[in-house]
Amino acid sequence: MTANRAWTLASYPSGWVTEANFKLVESPVPSPKAGEVLVKNLWLSLDPYMRGRISQQQSYAKGVEIGEVMTGETAGEVVDSKHPGFTQGDKVLTSQRMGWQLYGCMKGEALTKVDAVRAPLSYYLGCLGMPGLTAYFGMKEIGSTKAGETVVVSAASGAVGSVVGQLAKIAGCRAVGIAGGKAKCDYVVKELGFDACIDYKAGNLYRDLKEACPKGIDVNFENVGGEVFDTVLRLMTPFSRIIVCGLISDYNATEPYALKSIRSVLVNRVRMQGMIVFDWNQRYPEARRELANLLNQGKLKYRESVVEGLEKAPQAFIGLLKGRNFGKQLIKLA
Amino acid sequence: MTANRAWTLASYPSGWVTEANFKLVESPVPSPKAGEVLVKNLWLSLDPYMRGRISQQQSYAKGVEIGEVMTGETAGEVVDSKHPGFTQGDKVLTSQRMGWQLYGCMKGEALTKVDAVRAPLSYYLGCLGMPGLTAYFGMKEIGSTKAGETVVVSAASGAVGSVVGQLAKIAGCRAVGIAGGKAKCDYVVKELGFDACIDYKAGNLYRDLKEACPKGIDVNFENVGGEVFDTVLRLMTPFSRIIVCGLISDYNATEPYALKSIRSVLVNRVRMQGMIVFDWNQRYPEARRELANLLNQGKLKYRESVVEGLEKAPQAFIGLLKGRNFGKQLIKLA
Repeated sequence: MTANRAWTLASYPSGWVTEANFKLVESPVPSPKAGEVLVKNLWLSLDPYMRGRISQQQSYAKGVEIGEVMTGETAGEVVDSKHPGFTQGDKVLTSQRMGWQLYGCMKGEALTKVDAVRAPLSYYLGCLGMPGLTAYFGMKEIGSTKAGETVVVSAASGAVGSVVGQLAKIAGCRAVGIAGGKAKCDYVVKELGFDACIDYKAGNLYRDLKEACPKGIDVNFENVGGEVFDTVLRLMTPFSRIIVCGLISDYNATEPYALKSIRSVLVNRVRMQGMIVFDWNQRYPEARRELANLLNQGKLKYRESVVEGLEKAPQAFIGLLKGRNFGKQLIKLA
Repeated sequence: MTANRAWTLASYPSGWVTEANFKLVESPVPSPKAGEVLVKNLWLSLDPYMRGRISQQQSYAKGVEIGEVMTGETAGEVVDSKHPGFTQGDKVLTSQRMGWQLYGCMKGEALTKVDAVRAPLSYYLGCLGMPGLTAYFGMKEIGSTKAGETVVVSAASGAVGSVVGQLAKIAGCRAVGIAGGKAKCDYVVKELGFDACIDYKAGNLYRDLKEACPKGIDVNFENVGGEVFDTVLRLMTPFSRIIVCGLISDYNATEPYALKSIRSVLVNRVRMQGMIVFDWNQRYPEARRELANLLNQGKLKYRESVVEGLEKAPQAFIGLLKGRNFGKQLIKLA
């Protein structure tokens, strides 16, 4: 068996993440202890939340320490098992503690066996994984959408946003995306079937958004924060809802963007709620089943942005934070 | 009968309200038409929401036009009635359309007959009126407090805040107020029975609040906004709630305060909701009954800040916006 390789945290970023914040280390492939399973990782998921784990600010989860393997979820194959529930060749989804590495041991309880016939293995990191589940629970449990309402989602071509908008359409809503650049906006409208998509880089966000949402915004699924969020706030309707899922525009800022339009929450009796998908982890099977059905019925379209090779993970992660990816960002490991 | 006198809007304020924004006009006392009631106003309520009505910003209610009588609720006595439900001498609560004046006609449907034996008439503008109802519905419908939780309320000695904290204590919570100056803070703790009250003018708001809320803040009833709100946000606990009831610190600002700590909403899955008490107007009788019971049982203490004479209304209103009042601000008209 070859050696294991892993990206560890070399230093905490100050402002933008750089490749120098990470260090690639080699070590022997570990052996599973009783109750553990050795997984060969085939796909590594890169997600915006990871920026929070290498920040020294308070967050909802423990951060990565210097020298530790970077946090990250993978999809892979069991190569050795000391747990009765798993055998060699099983396809599994790991937990975030697996991290940016080629091999890793985990307790069987932390793994989810997946059906790689129902959908490609990598999909369990995207539309059937954490991003898809985030969209599903956010819309279902906080969005409370009714047919005919207008739903706006930022980072609309991304792993979460693309599912949000498609779920909005399935629920009979008007779906309006916000994305960066014409190519992403075209994809969101022409491929994913949103009613409109605003290019925030075009410089007329408020005017364009107002035009795309003539009756205002009833549900905002916020992935970006900052000025985009501040602009959306100004267009919220009475009794509207905001799902605060991500604030990616702030993650690399040394000073957070300061929101000017909070008065809209008062005037419009907006209900704004922060969400972390783990809070619904008991209900993942339900959500995964529903999303897989939509996928198999052709009602859920999905796009991946694949980079080959573990060594490119830091670079791809920085690209993700800068919005350079187009679709769910994955690293193909083997 | 003497002439009527009324304060009308002379100009929209830019930044701080000044007395020059208002004009006192005299007119004959009007006669009620069929279905109407002529009320002699005995008490005029001054409330922070009025600032929003003379702002040119979008709000939840129509603003006052130049030359129109200033918006305001009064408590008074029926002097003439062309409505079968009212007779001379009835004590009534008027709607905000009554305004800052000595006499006014209203449709009977817009009046609420009140029992001035159960409580002093002026109380129906305070702890049994809009401020008390605001505290009641905000805490009950949005706060979802559980015994043992920590509730923080800003403008704690005011008409809304004082009721919020006392309701929190009745619900078995730790009640922490924020107010300006030692006298108000002492009153909030010693008279109203809050567990602590922080003087935001003392200059150590974050440190003092943290010390007063060692387990963090589970419910924030926000009346003030601005830096106070931003500081509270940093101390919210996971799954905490924020009732956005007022943002008085912004009402006279030409630029709104920009909130830096919105990330707390995401990280802590905070549920933040704007409220306007009118949304529960079908349930006012229920709330008024419960608050009157608490009052009669001595469980609800209440303080008024009375200024005599209609001519002093603009000056008292400016004082209210600057936090100079101590207790519910009223104008005694007769």
